[in-house]
Amino acid sequence: MAEAGISWVRIGEFAWSRLEPSAGVFTFDWLDRAIEVLSNAGLKIILGTPTCTPPRRMLEQFPDMLALDAQGQPRKFGARRHYCFSHAGYRAASGRIAEILGDRYGRDTRIHGWQIDNEYGCHDTVLSYSDAARDAFRDWLAARYVTVEALNAAWGNVFWSMEYGDFDEIDLPNLTVTQPNPSHELAFRRFSSDQVVRYHEVQVAALRVRTDRPLIHNYMGRVLDFDHFEVGAALDIASWDSYPIGFLSDRLEASAAHKIRYLQQGDPDMQGFHHDLYRAVGKEGRWWVMEQQPGPVNWAPFNPAPLPGMVRLWSWEAFAHGAEVVSYFRWRQAPFAQEQMHAGLRRPDDAPAPGLAEVTQVAREIAQMPDIALQQAEVALIFDYPSEWAWTTLPQGQGFSYFALMLDAYRALRAQGLSIDILPSTVRDLSGYRLVLAPGLATLPDGLEAALTGAVTLIGPRANAVTPEISIPLPMGPNLAGLDVTVTQVETLPPQIARTVKGGGALHHWVETLEGTAQTSYETDNGQAVVKHTGNLHYLAGWPDATLWARLVADLAKQAGVNTREMPEGVRLRATQTHVFAFNYNAEAVAFDGVTIPPAGVHWWPV
Amino acid sequence: MAEAGISWVRIGEFAWSRLEPSAGVFTFDWLDRAIEVLSNAGLKIILGTPTCTPPRRMLEQFPDMLALDAQGQPRKFGARRHYCFSHAGYRAASGRIAEILGDRYGRDTRIHGWQIDNEYGCHDTVLSYSDAARDAFRDWLAARYVTVEALNAAWGNVFWSMEYGDFDEIDLPNLTVTQPNPSHELAFRRFSSDQVVRYHEVQVAALRVRTDRPLIHNYMGRVLDFDHFEVGAALDIASWDSYPIGFLSDRLEASAAHKIRYLQQGDPDMQGFHHDLYRAVGKEGRWWVMEQQPGPVNWAPFNPAPLPGMVRLWSWEAFAHGAEVVSYFRWRQAPFAQEQMHAGLRRPDDAPAPGLAEVTQVAREIAQMPDIALQQAEVALIFDYPSEWAWTTLPQGQGFSYFALMLDAYRALRAQGLSIDILPSTVRDLSGYRLVLAPGLATLPDGLEAALTGAVTLIGPRANAVTPEISIPLPMGPNLAGLDVTVTQVETLPPQIARTVKGGGALHHWVETLEGTAQTSYETDNGQAVVKHTGNLHYLAGWPDATLWARLVADLAKQAGVNTREMPEGVRLRATQTHVFAFNYNAEAVAFDGVTIPPAGVHWWPV
Amino acid sequence: MAEAGISWVRIGEFAWSRLEPSAGVFTFDWLDRAIEVLSNAGLKIILGTPTCTPPRRMLEQFPDMLALDAQGQPRKFGARRHYCFSHAGYRAASGRIAEILGDRYGRDTRIHGWQIDNEYGCHDTVLSYSDAARDAFRDWLAARYVTVEALNAAWGNVFWSMEYGDFDEIDLPNLTVTQPNPSHELAFRRFSSDQVVRYHEVQVAALRVRTDRPLIHNYMGRVLDFDHFEVGAALDIASWDSYPIGFLSDRLEASAAHKIRYLQQGDPDMQGFHHDLYRAVGKEGRWWVMEQQPGPVNWAPFNPAPLPGMVRLWSWEAFAHGAEVVSYFRWRQAPFAQEQMHAGLRRPDDAPAPGLAEVTQVAREIAQMPDIALQQAEVALIFDYPSEWAWTTLPQGQGFSYFALMLDAYRALRAQGLSIDILPSTVRDLSGYRLVLAPGLATLPDGLEAALTGAVTLIGPRANAVTPEISIPLPMGPNLAGLDVTVTQVETLPPQIARTVKGGGALHHWVETLEGTAQTSYETDNGQAVVKHTGNLHYLAGWPDATLWARLVADLAKQAGVNTREMPEGVRLRATQTHVFAFNYNAEAVAFDGVTIPPAGVHWWPV
Repeated sequence: MAEAGISWVRIGEFAWSRLEPSAGVFTFDWLDRAIEVLSNAGLKIILGTPTCTPPRRMLEQFPDMLALDAQGQPRKFGARRHYCFSHAGYRAASGRIAEILGDRYGRDTRIHGWQIDNEYGCHDTVLSYSDAARDAFRDWLAARYVTVEALNAAWGNVFWSMEYGDFDEIDLPNLTVTQPNPSHELAFRRFSSDQVVRYHEVQVAALRVRTDRPLIHNYMGRVLDFDHFEVGAALDIASWDSYPIGFLSDRLEASAAHKIRYLQQGDPDMQGFHHDLYRAVGKEGRWWVMEQQPGPVNWAPFNPAPLPGMVRLWSWEAFAHGAEVVSYFRWRQAPFAQEQMHAGLRRPDDAPAPGLAEVTQVAREIAQMPDIALQQAEVALIFDYPSEWAWTTLPQGQGFSYFALMLDAYRALRAQGLSIDILPSTVRDLSGYRLVLAPGLATLPDGLEAALTGAVTLIGPRANAVTPEISIPLPMGPNLAGLDVTVTQVETLPPQIARTVKGGGALHHWVETLEGTAQTSYETDNGQAVVKHTGNLHYLAGWPDATLWARLVADLAKQAGVNTREMPEGVRLRATQTHVFAFNYNAEAVAFDGVTIPPAGVHWWPV
Repeated sequence: MAEAGISWVRIGEFAWSRLEPSAGVFTFDWLDRAIEVLSNAGLKIILGTPTCTPPRRMLEQFPDMLALDAQGQPRKFGARRHYCFSHAGYRAASGRIAEILGDRYGRDTRIHGWQIDNEYGCHDTVLSYSDAARDAFRDWLAARYVTVEALNAAWGNVFWSMEYGDFDEIDLPNLTVTQPNPSHELAFRRFSSDQVVRYHEVQVAALRVRTDRPLIHNYMGRVLDFDHFEVGAALDIASWDSYPIGFLSDRLEASAAHKIRYLQQGDPDMQGFHHDLYRAVGKEGRWWVMEQQPGPVNWAPFNPAPLPGMVRLWSWEAFAHGAEVVSYFRWRQAPFAQEQMHAGLRRPDDAPAPGLAEVTQVAREIAQMPDIALQQAEVALIFDYPSEWAWTTLPQGQGFSYFALMLDAYRALRAQGLSIDILPSTVRDLSGYRLVLAPGLATLPDGLEAALTGAVTLIGPRANAVTPEISIPLPMGPNLAGLDVTVTQVETLPPQIARTVKGGGALHHWVETLEGTAQTSYETDNGQAVVKHTGNLHYLAGWPDATLWARLVADLAKQAGVNTREMPEGVRLRATQTHVFAFNYNAEAVAFDGVTIPPAGVHWWPV
Repeated sequence: MAEAGISWVRIGEFAWSRLEPSAGVFTFDWLDRAIEVLSNAGLKIILGTPTCTPPRRMLEQFPDMLALDAQGQPRKFGARRHYCFSHAGYRAASGRIAEILGDRYGRDTRIHGWQIDNEYGCHDTVLSYSDAARDAFRDWLAARYVTVEALNAAWGNVFWSMEYGDFDEIDLPNLTVTQPNPSHELAFRRFSSDQVVRYHEVQVAALRVRTDRPLIHNYMGRVLDFDHFEVGAALDIASWDSYPIGFLSDRLEASAAHKIRYLQQGDPDMQGFHHDLYRAVGKEGRWWVMEQQPGPVNWAPFNPAPLPGMVRLWSWEAFAHGAEVVSYFRWRQAPFAQEQMHAGLRRPDDAPAPGLAEVTQVAREIAQMPDIALQQAEVALIFDYPSEWAWTTLPQGQGFSYFALMLDAYRALRAQGLSIDILPSTVRDLSGYRLVLAPGLATLPDGLEAALTGAVTLIGPRANAVTPEISIPLPMGPNLAGLDVTVTQVETLPPQIARTVKGGGALHHWVETLEGTAQTSYETDNGQAVVKHTGNLHYLAGWPDATLWARLVADLAKQAGVNTREMPEGVRLRATQTHVFAFNYNAEAVAFDGVTIPPAGVHWWPV
């Protein structure tokens, strides 16, 4: 590792059965030896708490700790993440193992950071329908609504005689005859996110008093069932696990042609989006890639190898977006168990795997380069987990996805050469930003509206369309001061259908009908307003296709005084204070700005 | 409402939690006020029994009242229709609430009619696999077969050693290793339909003695799991809930091109089919549309808005088919709960929604028009619920659907400009009909054959193909006096394959081989008989495509002395004693018979 | 039957409820009469044990005998095969009914053979997740691994803290949060196969001592969840149930065009493959077709009729591959229960069905023909059930199928006019074979490598890629003496993508990266080795398309001195000592070798 230029190493994150082979009996000798060896080689160690993989014995103590799926089936031992976040006994046990590790290694100077648990929510594990979850949900509801009458009113339970007489009558919103009340489901999603936070904070508390080193969690790409900002609030550094090729085939709405074009590269915007997101999740913008795909993985529907150069490209892209560290998963391919076909930097027989040379090259390049200094972007995009939950709960049209809408907006911005800051909906100071986009923001929090006044701003579709309880607000949305626009009707369209827009492009998936005196700046060929605005504040009445997005971004940027440039397909820019980087996600070389960027190539210019 | 020309209003159909907020405690004041306000405005009220939405508390009394799905999972509280039709306790409770409402409002002259429950069977709720259903099924079997030996013989249980020694050994036909005995499954479907009838009749009995006003149920479109004729037999008026755009995307076998063409209009034949069906279900032909789609709804995969004009078109089409009343669902869009995205005639903020103007126009037009008088059609189509169950139980080929076959036949007739009466298979007097079609009639009831002698008649495919117990009859079908035809072999074909017919058109999906001395009037290019007939009685050996249907209908109509005319695509006629109506389901204007019917337009001529 | 030339008849295989109508009460009179009638007509009888269909009463005695599916749901009574192979009580009961039948009929000279049970594994019945299975699995594991530490080591349970402290902690590998440890799943699959063998052997033991007649099982096509070689080891004759048209639509990976082309014929290689497989399964090559499709069946997604001639073709193809007997299912179409739409040789009304004339023709032709003498083929293909389980457990790419890979190889050989012997991986003597193919052989058993030295041999992809415990071996595969090749990387590709090969053809689905000094004989257009070899031993680095397969087979055959000829599409040859047969699976006549073979026709030449 040291020879390859690697300086950080994460260990221990799944090792509970070896740390505590029987209840209360701990064996640290193997870990001590590992720490010794790694540290002697000059590597800085991140130690993981092993709570993602409770050992089998834990089930003897807590037979009811298993999560249950929406069909009421137990999610059994035999893989990982089988615990229910709401199980108090397991939550306490997780705190205890964190305390024990903290007691032993918290002041060990060889341990330079801590990872808590591993990939919360991976494998759809946030929502659990166990008895523990049900009981905790009732408590959470009682705390939120105080009286069941208040809950009935907030949810509109008069509809279909769904009124409750007592909090103990409220069940989890699964297995209903047809869809449950969306207020019920959204409450359960808010609760479930809160349970992750609550579970998480027990370990944070255990470690904070035992170490001064940074606390980290490694989020998994496109896991959206809990609020990462809230988990991140208790941490020092955000990190995420980046599997560009796996995500392309498994977690991306895209055409077959797009998936074929980027088969061995990954989507050109998926990584940048997450980089920018986790820069916002991390305290003071501190963030890492904790796991970077180094070769073919095992878990996607199809698992091709990265094109030569992509491991380097992904690494540099992360650094250009501000990553402090890019770590690779894994060092050596494990020859056994579930991930035996997951490539490492070394093969199972310990020979170098193809990714290793690229990693070594990156390390050499990094060493030779002056530090990259970040700068605030001119463009901000607001990302809001509760909006994801709201629209998952109430999609109105098959396949409506808040994340996909956000990624489309992000893609449109980057296709115009822009660098972006992603911000939470809790932001109240947008000074310095010239252009702000907030598509799909279900409920504008108090205070955000005021912050939106400075920059050129695009909100909609579905902006302020529901209350926090998921009902239609009165007056109806978006209900923004200074913008006389009301959404009076909503339509969802099948994939083959679009409403074409004068001048080019179209709305698809989602179309709103607008009313109000604000000025119409775009309209459909049949005269329906697509964008209305007053001054800097623009409302977008649907889901644009790529052509319309390009027009919108170019026009808004011009109004905002932000320079754009149309990028070649598959090429992305990232501007820092010190450098401008270009990344070529294509399998062919691309001429750009006087240079030829090779396939899967990176180029940078000092500013 | 009164200003819009609305004269009827339905209330109370989901209000149990407000009518009886705790067990035995009733609050009628809010309902009394509503009745007073509505009645003072001149509106005639339909009062619903709220049994579709039992309140949460009912589960304390009857923990086992929930329906179970075929996987054995409870269908939990939190939406609607969660009760099992076989639960005796809930059935009695439903009767009691009907009695209480009848006692209070049965003689109230402001109440002009009663709706019992709401949309029986919606959300696949007829079949329940609960213990209550199992026990009731055993009783039903014992009553039907008397001895278990008779049941074994009727079902052919000697096959695969499925013989039972006692009725109590018979389980519900779910979760079997491979398909259950079709006789077992069909018996369960017959039983399940009977349980709906039995449940229903308790409320009918409760109300009959307490009111003289008509009793009504609102059937949901394409819900086929119970016999509507049998439920309707106890009622005065049939009504149905018509959601043309929702049905197009959710409940119709059709090509993608068809679904795009009619995206904002609905299928041109789906509404007419149901109108004609419910005219047969209603006593003496009395029927309503209880819920007419007024704008985008919330529950279909995609929910676009109706084209301007369609709300008027749908309303007029209903009147042309004999509806006494067309009521719209709903008056005001509810801002909360499951249907918050379901349009009303008024928006959530009480401003008029687009549909209201069309409704007002229809009311004005109706007021200015002399009454429409119906007449018996020249063409009859026989619709039979047990055939739907038989072929669902024993489809023989993927996707075989009795309903789709019937709708194809209906579509072919209407594409030739014909008006149609739909009749139950219990009909014994077909006098006045010149042409009768009965495709897919699984078992010809005793007596129907005799009634078929007058008109030109087309039966088949699958006519008299099974006994009422779903076994192959001997002699084999169709076994009709005066028609020497036997089906000797049956084939099902994948969608890409068809057997082309001499002269044009083809059979697809389903093809039978015929034997017998009857004359062959159509045959495939490779010489297989497609239609054989003797005199007026024709047997059809498969499922025709649209081209072959058109030929068949034209030829049979000619033989029957019925005039046809080929209609422009998407235009439909409906003839009454007093008027002929034309409906243009296209998004473009169509020239027809000297007039230009605008997009989504209606035209009528006095006779 | 006798008139049609039929000489064998199978009876009794589902008749338990009639043999033993109540516990311990037997009624043999009906069976005695049947035996008498059939025997008097000169028919040789196969008597079946009825254990595939335990009567309902058995559930009173063994309520826990039902198999459970992977969701933990019982597989209920009401069809067949509902028993769990691991239930000791039912296993004993199965032995007892075999004893009773053996006692009564074992020495009856009219009984010429015995069929044990019926279609083991049909309807996915090998894997059961019952308590009986779980307990037996623990015992099986304890026997296999002796200590739980050994099991932990073999499975790599240190991964994700999956270590067990006791065999009783080990559950069945269903319902885990994400995939279970593949070692765990493979062990369960091995165990499940062993349970079939163990269940089977109880009946074998019961009959062996009671009869000298051959014991037979009728395997179902493409049922792969248990090791047929191991079940067959205890039997005298292998037989299988051949439904070419049902298999085409239900059990074959193929393009839509292929499925349409062969809609009424079946795939041209599916039957031959199974014939050759069961010749290997049968003791000393003895095998039958126990059930031959005679017309349209009832259970496939679509059920068209065989083209005229196909029943004869299928029969002759079986004889050409060495079948001793071809029996048809069924004699008369049963008019009731699940298979009422399954054609027989006679119709439900006892008239001859279309297949009967062809069967009669075959019987006449057979009678006129000198015996067919088989010969060892020049080409061998190795088929290995554990490889099927290994790759089902660890597919690495969506849809990877060992069976499909094998069938592709088989198809490529037959498309070159070759006759093939299929051999188990336990073979140690390959003398006489000039060309041996062993694609996808997960683990080369000890001793096989040595046997591979004589012939021209092609192994790979995935050859020796895992240990018997499903982990990556060190040194990594294929690790063959005399062939310096190592697979260093594996990729799976989506269906639209392929890696083209210099000279024509491509790899799809699966691509390996090779390293080593062996000579490269094929490579991709971008220079990746596709085949490497040293002397006669060739390693194939991926899944060839049809074009590449054709090139490979032609080249390897040439090297082996085996003559090939490119066959017309859909025409297949089969060479015996005495005759060469040609089968035309096309719906059109084909000119071949100076003769014109009619559609669905057979031609043979004496050698």
